[in-house]
Amino acid sequence: MIADKEHHHIENDDHYKGLTVNDGVEQPDSFNENSIQRFLKNKRKQPLTVDQYVDGILQGNRTILSKAVTLVESNKPEHQQIAQEIILKCLPHSGRSIRIGITGVPGVGKSTFIESTGKYITSLGHKLAVLAIDPSSERSKGSILGDKTRMEELSIDPNAYIRPSPSAGSLGGVARKTRETIILCEAAGFDVIFIETVGVGQSETVVHSMVDFFLLLMLSGAGDELQGIKRGIMEMADAITINKADGDNVDRAEMARVQYMNALQLFPPTDSGWKPKVLTCSAFRKIGLDKIWQTINDYMSHVNENQYFQHKRNEQSKFWMYETINDQLKSNFYQNPQIKKLLATFEEQVLNEELSSFVAAKDLLETYYQNQKEQE
Amino acid sequence: MIADKEHHHIENDDHYKGLTVNDGVEQPDSFNENSIQRFLKNKRKQPLTVDQYVDGILQGNRTILSKAVTLVESNKPEHQQIAQEIILKCLPHSGRSIRIGITGVPGVGKSTFIESTGKYITSLGHKLAVLAIDPSSERSKGSILGDKTRMEELSIDPNAYIRPSPSAGSLGGVARKTRETIILCEAAGFDVIFIETVGVGQSETVVHSMVDFFLLLMLSGAGDELQGIKRGIMEMADAITINKADGDNVDRAEMARVQYMNALQLFPPTDSGWKPKVLTCSAFRKIGLDKIWQTINDYMSHVNENQYFQHKRNEQSKFWMYETINDQLKSNFYQNPQIKKLLATFEEQVLNEELSSFVAAKDLLETYYQNQKEQE
Repeated sequence: MIADKEHHHIENDDHYKGLTVNDGVEQPDSFNENSIQRFLKNKRKQPLTVDQYVDGILQGNRTILSKAVTLVESNKPEHQQIAQEIILKCLPHSGRSIRIGITGVPGVGKSTFIESTGKYITSLGHKLAVLAIDPSSERSKGSILGDKTRMEELSIDPNAYIRPSPSAGSLGGVARKTRETIILCEAAGFDVIFIETVGVGQSETVVHSMVDFFLLLMLSGAGDELQGIKRGIMEMADAITINKADGDNVDRAEMARVQYMNALQLFPPTDSGWKPKVLTCSAFRKIGLDKIWQTINDYMSHVNENQYFQHKRNEQSKFWMYETINDQLKSNFYQNPQIKKLLATFEEQVLNEELSSFVAAKDLLETYYQNQKEQE
Repeated sequence: MIADKEHHHIENDDHYKGLTVNDGVEQPDSFNENSIQRFLKNKRKQPLTVDQYVDGILQGNRTILSKAVTLVESNKPEHQQIAQEIILKCLPHSGRSIRIGITGVPGVGKSTFIESTGKYITSLGHKLAVLAIDPSSERSKGSILGDKTRMEELSIDPNAYIRPSPSAGSLGGVARKTRETIILCEAAGFDVIFIETVGVGQSETVVHSMVDFFLLLMLSGAGDELQGIKRGIMEMADAITINKADGDNVDRAEMARVQYMNALQLFPPTDSGWKPKVLTCSAFRKIGLDKIWQTINDYMSHVNENQYFQHKRNEQSKFWMYETINDQLKSNFYQNPQIKKLLATFEEQVLNEELSSFVAAKDLLETYYQNQKEQE
């Protein structure tokens, strides 16, 4: 029952009346072979050089940016090779943006929020990139930004760039690709980056590790809509915004705002010294968006002043180095054919108390290292 | 500034007026050679067999239990060998206890709380073991339970068994030992296990992964005493208890209770379906301890009824198998002499944007695997 709940995705429920999540296509190689082939045949008959990619990106050429992102998303070693060279050359031109994580359960109005707030931000002269770490790998294999009709205005805005997350892959893999895509977008001149997640899985922690500011979208009735949110996310938020504060809902939203504000005051202080704010807005009616943007700017002033901004960015860079290492070490182990064969049996023995967790681990590790030796 | 705060331990502050944390002795081998030597020379001139250990533990012999725990804590392979055999034979006799995690920052009155609540619980006929995952490894190398004078009554109670955490070692190592000690204590008939942490570091997450019930101790003034608590811990708690609710402080404690209660209602529901409770108590005046124990029992009924109890215990067993594996994989990598040599340079290059986090990780991994091959 509990396990089921873990794997159930609200948007796949028959009763769910909101925007639906498209079923993603399962494709171990997330790279689209056709589009690259087409690209290779067109124009110059031969692939762009790394420098041509980098120049194109630095000039803000969206077509080249998109193709570079496709390389980043590809799992083919030859594409990864080029991608990494591009990233390395873009690195010195990256970093000059505000990276904003946006989360909230399905039904909270994330797409509308991103559309409205995004339009507001580009109207101020900013260039906005919208990325997503979607839950496909974790649960429904659905791509949250796949349906571009959700953001009709933003998707045709010349100052906005929307890039759905690759539709399949491990969370670690998707996260790496997203982080690398951030670098390319920043080098291409996008100075505000939105990274969207669904607020139900592990992806929030990952997003939290790559953004400067973490925004949690909520609704007023502090009841049912909380069902999907993972515990611990509220304490990550730099701001909570109660959406759908319009019409009959204004009073309720304001009441919720006060309640959350009081609750947040009982939380321990953040590492940044910033006191998380609670706001209301109506993304649909475009109310309160300026205050949200103001709050984000206040935050940026605050963390620039106390130098937390650079500290956190540095910590994140290190985090991703270690995270990638740890991920790869694990993946090497768990993908080992002999380990794969043994794992279920060992798990069962642990559950039946025929083996302690630690002895099981020790035996598996010995098998693994022995196996590695024999492969030489 | 921020980094400093991370490493600063409140109890080591000159201004700190509470009980002091003893400086632990740095000893890579946490096993006390003298005591075992003495033990070996005494009595029978030869070490106990595994069966003698197990029999002794099952009979509730505290001396033998202590010696077995010393083996668990030893890093010597020959001791680990015996320890693991003992644990395996004790496993079928373990599990029949309530495992309770207790956390709270220094100054909140944890020792007094454990002493008073512990005495109350043993007075009801229970047998209580008190273990600690202390922050020594993480920060101050101080052993929180080292000073037994803190628990004068409990430490001489024949139905209580207090075992300080080993005074040095990695968090992963200390956690493993604590979890194995739980098994031995349960086999020895202890049916309530307290596991104490300080609420300032990473150890809470680890403790959360080995207990049934997680209790957070707080004080009434929702201000300064929160300084030390890590964000995210509040959302882990199955109950929050406001301590020192006596004398002048009763009203303030009651007000804090209501505030926290309201705040908790805004939190997403727990996996267990349990609604976290907020209570007040005075550990010093022994007020409210019965209600805390009642709450823990209510929780146990709740999770036994909906079968979450067994589900969580199973998940924890699996978690510890995987955690041990992952820990070992990482430790093999980071302890590799060549990696140790390179790591700082790579970190620096990542921070200087001369290398992307992912390329740095990839290069280090290649070095590592190459190095492993050459060692064959």
